[in-house]
Amino acid sequence: MQILKLGGSVITDKNTPLTANNENIKRLSKEIASVGPQQLIMIHGGGSFGHPIAKRHEISEGYKRPDQWQGFSRTHQAMVHLNKIIVDALLDEGVPAFSLSPSSFIVTEARRINELDTAKIRRLLGAGLVPVLYGDAVLDTQQGFAILSGDQLVMRLAMTLSADRIVFGSDVDGVYTADPKLVKEARLIPRLSLKELDGMVRIGEALNTDVTGGMLGKVKEAAEAVAAGVEVILVNAGQAGRVEAALRGEKVMGTVLTR
Amino acid sequence: MQILKLGGSVITDKNTPLTANNENIKRLSKEIASVGPQQLIMIHGGGSFGHPIAKRHEISEGYKRPDQWQGFSRTHQAMVHLNKIIVDALLDEGVPAFSLSPSSFIVTEARRINELDTAKIRRLLGAGLVPVLYGDAVLDTQQGFAILSGDQLVMRLAMTLSADRIVFGSDVDGVYTADPKLVKEARLIPRLSLKELDGMVRIGEALNTDVTGGMLGKVKEAAEAVAAGVEVILVNAGQAGRVEAALRGEKVMGTVLTR
Repeated sequence: MQILKLGGSVITDKNTPLTANNENIKRLSKEIASVGPQQLIMIHGGGSFGHPIAKRHEISEGYKRPDQWQGFSRTHQAMVHLNKIIVDALLDEGVPAFSLSPSSFIVTEARRINELDTAKIRRLLGAGLVPVLYGDAVLDTQQGFAILSGDQLVMRLAMTLSADRIVFGSDVDGVYTADPKLVKEARLIPRLSLKELDGMVRIGEALNTDVTGGMLGKVKEAAEAVAAGVEVILVNAGQAGRVEAALRGEKVMGTVLTR
Repeated sequence: MQILKLGGSVITDKNTPLTANNENIKRLSKEIASVGPQQLIMIHGGGSFGHPIAKRHEISEGYKRPDQWQGFSRTHQAMVHLNKIIVDALLDEGVPAFSLSPSSFIVTEARRINELDTAKIRRLLGAGLVPVLYGDAVLDTQQGFAILSGDQLVMRLAMTLSADRIVFGSDVDGVYTADPKLVKEARLIPRLSLKELDGMVRIGEALNTDVTGGMLGKVKEAAEAVAAGVEVILVNAGQAGRVEAALRGEKVMGTVLTR
């Protein structure tokens, strides 16, 4: 079973609120369709849909003022909107996608998923469908509400359902030796072990910066899955063919995390 | 706790696919806002969103052909679309509505809800929010998938959460002595006991017709809740002020079902 995460930066126009990147969504839907998706779960981020509203109402910090409930619901509504665009695009390309709304079946505890009922996801996979989930505004037993990130959802599902592979599709090529936007000599790292990753995290902490070019949060979250034997690959989903190749298990430009 | 069911005929244009009745939705949102919704659950039907697609793909009859999975997902997508319009309208009027997607947490068994986890709904109600659910295409353990009607959802939630009142808002004034579209002398029945209802059902079965003017299915489904002491009132939600009056517990044109 594979999990494909599509970052908000790829499927939305990050600079314009509530604007989908329809070109990327259509191309990626075709790539997924061409692989003939079997035993695939998709999870997408919020980009210019969920993030601006969640930030404005401080949803990730939890309940402080009654007026935040409106923002909590509006954040979810924005994600429902983006999810509808994506699932419709997948269906148009023949991918048997089915939307699952995280806030309808997940409650977090201090921002982390506690119990997770995967019966419905297993049933959908068993029928050959592609469950499509997303980062969402969810109820939280400690702080009232919280933001459940798509990355946390990916990791939890990968561990619970024993995924074979996770493909992270973002707008960067993978993990770099330094931030490629700042350092000309920065090189893409094709394979990165947990030990090397740990070293980079420490260097980053010492320098108080993310030396990987913005991928540190993601790779830190991914470490547990890598340790459990899940193949984790980071590719640039903004470049044609890379997600498709990664899903096929073919060699592709990107970074593979290894034990 | 009250449950308000809004029929698809009121919130959509039944004759035009995927067309919301925005005028009714806005007016009803204002009525609900003016009551100051506390301890309220809303459930809506599909009208011209869910029904045509579900019918075309024969979703309610369960899995027969692989191509139906696409129709199953498309039916859900249409309901997500309608739900988004309604929740957005409620939020615009200041109602702290929050969408819950039935297919994300309910699996039916031979078309009936078996287990129902109401923890999330209780938590939303506890926070002063208005959970908004809908009739949906859901997974079914016996027949693959099924249509979970909004009416079944209303009844199950009313019983599980011990609702005080159910308001059914449809496009007719209530239960009639005969079909008002066919019989000029048809009179609206302001109060109808279960015993009288049972008599009407038998007359209807004998004549092989619905003597109540189309409300028979609904009132039969409602009988269990009525027997358990829930106040059930049927009003015309297409007429201004009736849903509002019913939610306030005021006297209003319609039919009250009694034990």
